[in-house]
Amino acid sequence: MTDTLDIIEFTPRADQLAYTFGGAAPVQRITPGTALRLWSEDAFGGVLRSVHDLSSEKVDLRFVNAQTGPFYVDGAEPGDALALHFVHMEPARDWAASAAIPFFGGLTSTDRTATLQDPLPDTTWIYHLDRARGMLQFEARHSEFSVDLPLEPMLGTVGLAPAGNEVRSSLVPERFGGNMDSPEMRAGSTCFLGVNVEGALFSIGDGHYRQGEGESCGTAVEGAMTTTLIVDLVKGAAPAWPRLEDDEYLMTVGSSRPLEDAWRVSQVDMVVWLGELFRLDKMDAYQLLSQVSQVPIANVVDPNYSVVTKVPKSLLPTADAFEGLHRDLRERATRIS
Amino acid sequence: MTDTLDIIEFTPRADQLAYTFGGAAPVQRITPGTALRLWSEDAFGGVLRSVHDLSSEKVDLRFVNAQTGPFYVDGAEPGDALALHFVHMEPARDWAASAAIPFFGGLTSTDRTATLQDPLPDTTWIYHLDRARGMLQFEARHSEFSVDLPLEPMLGTVGLAPAGNEVRSSLVPERFGGNMDSPEMRAGSTCFLGVNVEGALFSIGDGHYRQGEGESCGTAVEGAMTTTLIVDLVKGAAPAWPRLEDDEYLMTVGSSRPLEDAWRVSQVDMVVWLGELFRLDKMDAYQLLSQVSQVPIANVVDPNYSVVTKVPKSLLPTADAFEGLHRDLRERATRIS
Amino acid sequence: MTDTLDIIEFTPRADQLAYTFGGAAPVQRITPGTALRLWSEDAFGGVLRSVHDLSSEKVDLRFVNAQTGPFYVDGAEPGDALALHFVHMEPARDWAASAAIPFFGGLTSTDRTATLQDPLPDTTWIYHLDRARGMLQFEARHSEFSVDLPLEPMLGTVGLAPAGNEVRSSLVPERFGGNMDSPEMRAGSTCFLGVNVEGALFSIGDGHYRQGEGESCGTAVEGAMTTTLIVDLVKGAAPAWPRLEDDEYLMTVGSSRPLEDAWRVSQVDMVVWLGELFRLDKMDAYQLLSQVSQVPIANVVDPNYSVVTKVPKSLLPTADAFEGLHRDLRERATRIS
Amino acid sequence: MTDTLDIIEFTPRADQLAYTFGGAAPVQRITPGTALRLWSEDAFGGVLRSVHDLSSEKVDLRFVNAQTGPFYVDGAEPGDALALHFVHMEPARDWAASAAIPFFGGLTSTDRTATLQDPLPDTTWIYHLDRARGMLQFEARHSEFSVDLPLEPMLGTVGLAPAGNEVRSSLVPERFGGNMDSPEMRAGSTCFLGVNVEGALFSIGDGHYRQGEGESCGTAVEGAMTTTLIVDLVKGAAPAWPRLEDDEYLMTVGSSRPLEDAWRVSQVDMVVWLGELFRLDKMDAYQLLSQVSQVPIANVVDPNYSVVTKVPKSLLPTADAFEGLHRDLRERATRIS
Repeated sequence: MTDTLDIIEFTPRADQLAYTFGGAAPVQRITPGTALRLWSEDAFGGVLRSVHDLSSEKVDLRFVNAQTGPFYVDGAEPGDALALHFVHMEPARDWAASAAIPFFGGLTSTDRTATLQDPLPDTTWIYHLDRARGMLQFEARHSEFSVDLPLEPMLGTVGLAPAGNEVRSSLVPERFGGNMDSPEMRAGSTCFLGVNVEGALFSIGDGHYRQGEGESCGTAVEGAMTTTLIVDLVKGAAPAWPRLEDDEYLMTVGSSRPLEDAWRVSQVDMVVWLGELFRLDKMDAYQLLSQVSQVPIANVVDPNYSVVTKVPKSLLPTADAFEGLHRDLRERATRIS
Repeated sequence: MTDTLDIIEFTPRADQLAYTFGGAAPVQRITPGTALRLWSEDAFGGVLRSVHDLSSEKVDLRFVNAQTGPFYVDGAEPGDALALHFVHMEPARDWAASAAIPFFGGLTSTDRTATLQDPLPDTTWIYHLDRARGMLQFEARHSEFSVDLPLEPMLGTVGLAPAGNEVRSSLVPERFGGNMDSPEMRAGSTCFLGVNVEGALFSIGDGHYRQGEGESCGTAVEGAMTTTLIVDLVKGAAPAWPRLEDDEYLMTVGSSRPLEDAWRVSQVDMVVWLGELFRLDKMDAYQLLSQVSQVPIANVVDPNYSVVTKVPKSLLPTADAFEGLHRDLRERATRIS
Repeated sequence: MTDTLDIIEFTPRADQLAYTFGGAAPVQRITPGTALRLWSEDAFGGVLRSVHDLSSEKVDLRFVNAQTGPFYVDGAEPGDALALHFVHMEPARDWAASAAIPFFGGLTSTDRTATLQDPLPDTTWIYHLDRARGMLQFEARHSEFSVDLPLEPMLGTVGLAPAGNEVRSSLVPERFGGNMDSPEMRAGSTCFLGVNVEGALFSIGDGHYRQGEGESCGTAVEGAMTTTLIVDLVKGAAPAWPRLEDDEYLMTVGSSRPLEDAWRVSQVDMVVWLGELFRLDKMDAYQLLSQVSQVPIANVVDPNYSVVTKVPKSLLPTADAFEGLHRDLRERATRIS
Repeated sequence: MTDTLDIIEFTPRADQLAYTFGGAAPVQRITPGTALRLWSEDAFGGVLRSVHDLSSEKVDLRFVNAQTGPFYVDGAEPGDALALHFVHMEPARDWAASAAIPFFGGLTSTDRTATLQDPLPDTTWIYHLDRARGMLQFEARHSEFSVDLPLEPMLGTVGLAPAGNEVRSSLVPERFGGNMDSPEMRAGSTCFLGVNVEGALFSIGDGHYRQGEGESCGTAVEGAMTTTLIVDLVKGAAPAWPRLEDDEYLMTVGSSRPLEDAWRVSQVDMVVWLGELFRLDKMDAYQLLSQVSQVPIANVVDPNYSVVTKVPKSLLPTADAFEGLHRDLRERATRIS
């Protein structure tokens, strides 16, 4: 008898890449409990390879954030919670790219926050990864400046098929997860998403070798990624919006516009969650939340903005969210070969 | 020769309390370099003393956040940066209050986000401080639940007189600082504010024994506070918006509506600041910020919402912001008797 | 030789109703120049027939705004402008319904502007149409009050398949048109939409017997409608966002959140349009727009909010927008039997 | 016995101009019923006299919208409604100016909607008034284009002293009125404002020879104005937000950010007003409003955005708002010599 967990490895062919949540045929069928090791392309499709590769020339914004997936999870039905526990995230290349795309990003006018001004200059930055030191080298493009920044891998997009037969671009964060662009989506975290269709049809992509909160210029340190995760299911436990758990925090994610609505969504969902876990009246949960929540902004650049509400588990009594699945998955993760 | 720093102690009489930034006569004239020990009343004027004291009956919302000050700083002129370094914040009482005020707060409709719904129930919570353990006891009002939360004192309001002869309620966060409600306004931090009028006319108040990011229900653990601070001046160095520095972070604070505009303000000011400190082109500063910023929300409940942009100093080359004043003030703080 | 224009009549079977833009198979193939007479179901699927029929019990919000269509227009390609000229809109029933749906509407918290408050009471109003007088009778439900309001038919939704393989709910207004809920979508108006896919795949629905600007409570006087329209095409003339023309106004429609972004979109598109029509520099078009635009809000209740920018043709030199197609369609409309 | 109404004429000296609501000493004391004929300077202080006068060089943005007033109204107390009925508005010069001020306006980034982009070019336009024809000549600056636009005089600012001892810039629209920039503030309209301080302390200014809805570029056709108005008082009838009445409409004005909150404020106040006038339950008033309101945007450029909700009196039963004062003032206006 062995207690190692087998892993299914999957690297998509170019013709298997998906650019939407919903609307794509599953690449594989898996059972709950499966561990996967997935290769994902970078947000730009791997075409920004030098500072002379400009996004306006090389990137079609309708086809970014190529998804690895979707995967059909046996037994997943609307109303269930899909759990994705991230075990490892490893850069799949020794370089990564970031870009200020014209009229895209947080500190520029956009197609929505539309102004008559000229765009900022289309600029590409290339980061070199020193794998041994775990450092990324930032080199300024228009100034004399360079600095090493720690590698902190995360996934920008983790999502599943939307409700109501909608099909959404992989640029979109929503109830179904998607392009939330939160640094909390890292190894050690478990993401819970409410299933909308048979099989759940989840996918991942948009690996970031690191990202500041807000993803200000619209792009992180974008790189191909190898992600190891375990997939599981909690029947009938679908959260209204994405939830995350790691060893230290309970987290909810809201995505909407304006930014205060993203915040409201994540906060109300945390009030609901605290209420469930500790049998708290909503007013008491509201009060408790007001004094303990940490609220990092995730993105202010995507079609919806995303805000994370975090509550430190150390400040709360012990509780088993989603039947204690995160702790269980942490244990199972140690058995991955 | 002594190297201890003398301290001026000040406790306002009831008739000296100010409820505005600007528009109030100075309570005292001080010179740059002065250390102050200031007593401040809680946001509710000290009238919520039991869970049976309701804000709708006891509190006039036009007169909350009573300010201690304003202080006239000799030599402060428009264009200067006023520096306030917080040395200690000590609870001045053994209890504090929080309240869900009808139609005030983040998860309710308000006088602005106006709806036709009924208000949430007017509710008051009283926190007891265990000074020895440094813990605050939260007791639920409508559920069986209590938990101890760590004491983490901070000031909700730190501000000075506005530009253009305006006078603003002490509920307002703006360019002049004010009711930013950020947990970063704690002992160990230095706050830099752009002076608008001769003498600067700064004041402080709205002590919080602790507060979550966002101040969701509209009020923190509100308590009378004894704050020790050192006042100084950097001539001609006025920042456009409030800036903070502690031993680990450079921080900028934006306050506006919608929330994304508060974020944009803080982010653009950090791009400017990074540009100044490291001679970075704005596009390079934008890129760097995108990968290193931490962005906690401060408040989503006041007349303007507030967002903090933080950059870890550990990720940057050494730099002397505001002529290295923060480090200098940290050193001077050790000499306070 | 006859100069009357033939009309294709179409009433969808229940199994032909579409609830999305994109993602539905075309019900019919037509050629540019075709006149259509289309029956459309009301937004609620016809199930609110008395004041005792409550939306929370009878309506599944994922399946509202049933679309009649989509129609495949021969020769329509990405980059073309699809023109839909509305000739007549006639109520298909003698009654219509409106409802305050819990947590849906402009003066209530919603799933996005999320609060902890209770919903407003689920309420249904039935309007009776006096066809001879052209009046709708409003009867208050909780007060002694009734009043007759003029029939002013319009369509809430006019849209086509989105770009990038997206599929969107028929509740959504966007670049592709959709659920804009503007009273300007009435007989006499020509709507121009940018084609995204071969065949355009347009549909209509969500007839309103009348609607105030903003559609405050979330629903208009919702009724089944018989709409007569002429379909045409302007090759290579796709507008970035929906445009409308009637005998008096040029109009652009922006849809986004927050509301100011919907406004910005419609305003920038009008600056572009004025620039094209009159060879105006963008600054001059901006200035002219600033002094002549009329800006009615369309909806503040849908997943995106919509704002219309109108410029009176009487204030401008003569110009042939879209090759003068609106005037031509007005003439052709007179030949409809 | 005469039935003509005497008029007090007032033209402020340069040193009497006020740039705030609140905080300025009254220029004159008047009694309710008084008719005034007031000269007001243009928003730029009269310094933009040719297209070569640039706002960035000539205008200090802290001192624009010079106010004529404030006037102290005998007997006005907090809780009263101040009524200002506008009888005539006549251009006081034969020219007016408009400008695209750098980083100010609706289709540019601003100090709040902050981006890293360059500003739009600082541009001034001068309009010549043909008094006989009642036309203003627009001449493009960067294109070959000119067009005559009808003179339609209105006031950008009508306000009184704020509550809570605040003093606000004359750029600000708020509960106290102020810089609402609505074309509805024209001759024939009566404006009702809730009094906050003894004497009300109202002022007017910022005359516009015409303005589009939204005031897109940030400035209208700005001109010195001679305004004839009658001042009156309705004891104890203070509205929460500004209300307007003319012969055809009841109107409420909301001012806030984001724009949907300005809309919500004006809509909720109209629900309240309809409820009062017709004894309507709030749900019925909400429904009625949803089908009859007209909602023009007033400004999307000031520190708060403003939206007007209008209800046509022709659709409602007869009602005497504010004790029928508008009709009475219309009659009195005919007796002005």
